[in-house]
Amino acid sequence: MSQDHVQEIATIMRHPAFKVAIDRLGSDHERTIADIITLTEIPAPPFKEDRRASAYLAMLRAHGLEDVEQDEIGNVMGLRRGAGNGTLIVVAAHLDTVFPEGTDVTVRREGTRLYAPGVGDDTRSLAVLLAFIRAMDAAGIRTRNDILFVGDVGEEGLGDLRGIRHLFMNGRYSGKIDAFITVDSPQMDKIVVGGVGSKRYSIRFKGPGGHSFKAFGIVNPMYAMAHVVAELGRIEVPETPRTTFCASIVGGGTSVNAVPEDSWVDIDLRSESAEELAKLDLRCREIVAEAVARENATRSISEGAISVEIRTLGERPAGSTPKDADIVRYATAASQAAGFTPRLEASSTDANIPMSLGIPAIRIGSGGAGGRAHSLGEWIDVEKSASVSGMIAGLASIVAVAGLVDG
Amino acid sequence: MSQDHVQEIATIMRHPAFKVAIDRLGSDHERTIADIITLTEIPAPPFKEDRRASAYLAMLRAHGLEDVEQDEIGNVMGLRRGAGNGTLIVVAAHLDTVFPEGTDVTVRREGTRLYAPGVGDDTRSLAVLLAFIRAMDAAGIRTRNDILFVGDVGEEGLGDLRGIRHLFMNGRYSGKIDAFITVDSPQMDKIVVGGVGSKRYSIRFKGPGGHSFKAFGIVNPMYAMAHVVAELGRIEVPETPRTTFCASIVGGGTSVNAVPEDSWVDIDLRSESAEELAKLDLRCREIVAEAVARENATRSISEGAISVEIRTLGERPAGSTPKDADIVRYATAASQAAGFTPRLEASSTDANIPMSLGIPAIRIGSGGAGGRAHSLGEWIDVEKSASVSGMIAGLASIVAVAGLVDG
Repeated sequence: MSQDHVQEIATIMRHPAFKVAIDRLGSDHERTIADIITLTEIPAPPFKEDRRASAYLAMLRAHGLEDVEQDEIGNVMGLRRGAGNGTLIVVAAHLDTVFPEGTDVTVRREGTRLYAPGVGDDTRSLAVLLAFIRAMDAAGIRTRNDILFVGDVGEEGLGDLRGIRHLFMNGRYSGKIDAFITVDSPQMDKIVVGGVGSKRYSIRFKGPGGHSFKAFGIVNPMYAMAHVVAELGRIEVPETPRTTFCASIVGGGTSVNAVPEDSWVDIDLRSESAEELAKLDLRCREIVAEAVARENATRSISEGAISVEIRTLGERPAGSTPKDADIVRYATAASQAAGFTPRLEASSTDANIPMSLGIPAIRIGSGGAGGRAHSLGEWIDVEKSASVSGMIAGLASIVAVAGLVDG
Repeated sequence: MSQDHVQEIATIMRHPAFKVAIDRLGSDHERTIADIITLTEIPAPPFKEDRRASAYLAMLRAHGLEDVEQDEIGNVMGLRRGAGNGTLIVVAAHLDTVFPEGTDVTVRREGTRLYAPGVGDDTRSLAVLLAFIRAMDAAGIRTRNDILFVGDVGEEGLGDLRGIRHLFMNGRYSGKIDAFITVDSPQMDKIVVGGVGSKRYSIRFKGPGGHSFKAFGIVNPMYAMAHVVAELGRIEVPETPRTTFCASIVGGGTSVNAVPEDSWVDIDLRSESAEELAKLDLRCREIVAEAVARENATRSISEGAISVEIRTLGERPAGSTPKDADIVRYATAASQAAGFTPRLEASSTDANIPMSLGIPAIRIGSGGAGGRAHSLGEWIDVEKSASVSGMIAGLASIVAVAGLVDG
């Protein structure tokens, strides 16, 4: 651990202004909880984040940010001006949840626990970003860099990180962002410094189809699909860098006495390493080609041959932030100073995009506890002391990365 | 070939009344085509034959049959009284198709071809039965036996022959039927005298499920399913007696980023030989056991192991009608007299049920050509001369089996 970074965090933590900010995080705690509930109860299904985005846009404006706007892809954002040279860091939380339209998102409170789909992943973080702004303003904290606070769309599943991808690739701030922190889910026990890349595709085999008895002997897309799934299951992948595959969903066929006309499987490939992911992807495509050739050679193509179509469902770039990068060291030191012992991990988050571009990026926690993310039983704990400790760690990290301007 | 049977068919063919019937089959041809189109365009998915059954019931009534009714299982039927001692023969065609609800059943006509799902299997036969009734009536043909014309349900797939099973086992005519002819699909090149037995089951593998990346390494029911399908595809079966297998429908999984909790496949096993069917069934069950053991040995069972459940979807009895039975000899002679050279074959049809009960039963063709049954590309050819020749063979068979009463 670099002593410089530990020292800088200690300086921030001891600073009178930061102490005012800490007090404000505490005294504002009920308001933060109220914001969590308000935002959680505005549904934000995949590709349908707009209602929540509008509400969050109004909140960002009410918090006195500049250049508050919604971009072309749906992200909402506002700038907190720095004192300095205009370099920019982004602090983001994602608007979308995994839950489809119609999911009951009413928050149920039991003691210090809040239960609702999406409450922790990632709605709490949206409210925490607002608490950070209020605390900094109350304390008169000025940073060297500008901070762009973003509520982004499309982090989950088929959203494919489209919000942050747009921000970095096509948005008005594209090319101007020097560091990226996503606050995603409550857990304080890990800082994400590796972006697990993924490739997801749907592989659909088609054939002529026919009567199961009369047409017996013709090619059957089911055997091609089964070959792919069986061979996928035999691929050897390294434990480090962690690399995984999954046959996730299959379908095909309509009648028990018919050779089906199609059969498909959706697969999910992931790796912490771009190279391993590319190898896995290549092997999969080989297997698919093998499956087609094999089935067309094994059975009759007199009525037609097996064909295949591979449709991309998602593609997230792999990447990583060096463990000795300032952003990682500051976040680690801040986390430890607030009483946590975080591990450095790899995961798939909005930070994948800047990581893949070589821009320093991490994921940190929003504080407090939580569990059952992506299930209807999702919950968070908003017990005050653990929640505020988490927020202190987060705010100290942001201030350190953005540079505290003294006086 | 018995000269008696050839002689009897020749007598029928030469009979002035039968010549009138033949003329009527020809002059009615456009009406028969219209009936094929009308009936084909009324969907009759498995277990949802009711709309077509109602329409066919009205048609049977309009054709002047007696005791027109729908039985408890859904078959519709009507009696054409014979002159004689009241013994009964059944002439049937099945109402159901293999196609699920929502399938486009619009008939497309190109020259003499009609394209539509179910058009040949077995909708054409329903219209041909009506043509037979009109032709016999126009010619004043009287038969010794009563003829029950039946549009039956549940011939296909999971229907498991439930319509004809009910007719023979539980219906009001149960125990009174002396012979059975099913008119099923256009092909005139074979007469079915053997009932192919079948076993159909749904094999469902279950596992713990989990996150595709975080829980990677746990058992996945998809690989067990794929093993079964891939190994099924490798089984060697004899050409004679014809023995077949088919992986027909698969499913499982809900999210691309989750190891699924289940995966299932429906398979169809058939054989002309009860012994070969039993062997195939045994091998399948071995493969299923192998698949479970293999997956539980290959990946981690820390979160739970793979289990399997085999559910029987259908079981059709094998059976046969002796090749020297009157019904076979008459149908063969009639077919030859009309210019065809039919082979005697085994298949899985409604005739399996009476065959398994020792009641003489055959399947004959409805005439004309056709192909791609059980696929969306199904078609029939309604070119007049081939169509009428086929109908002449069918009607002569029926009249011979029912006994032509002269004068």
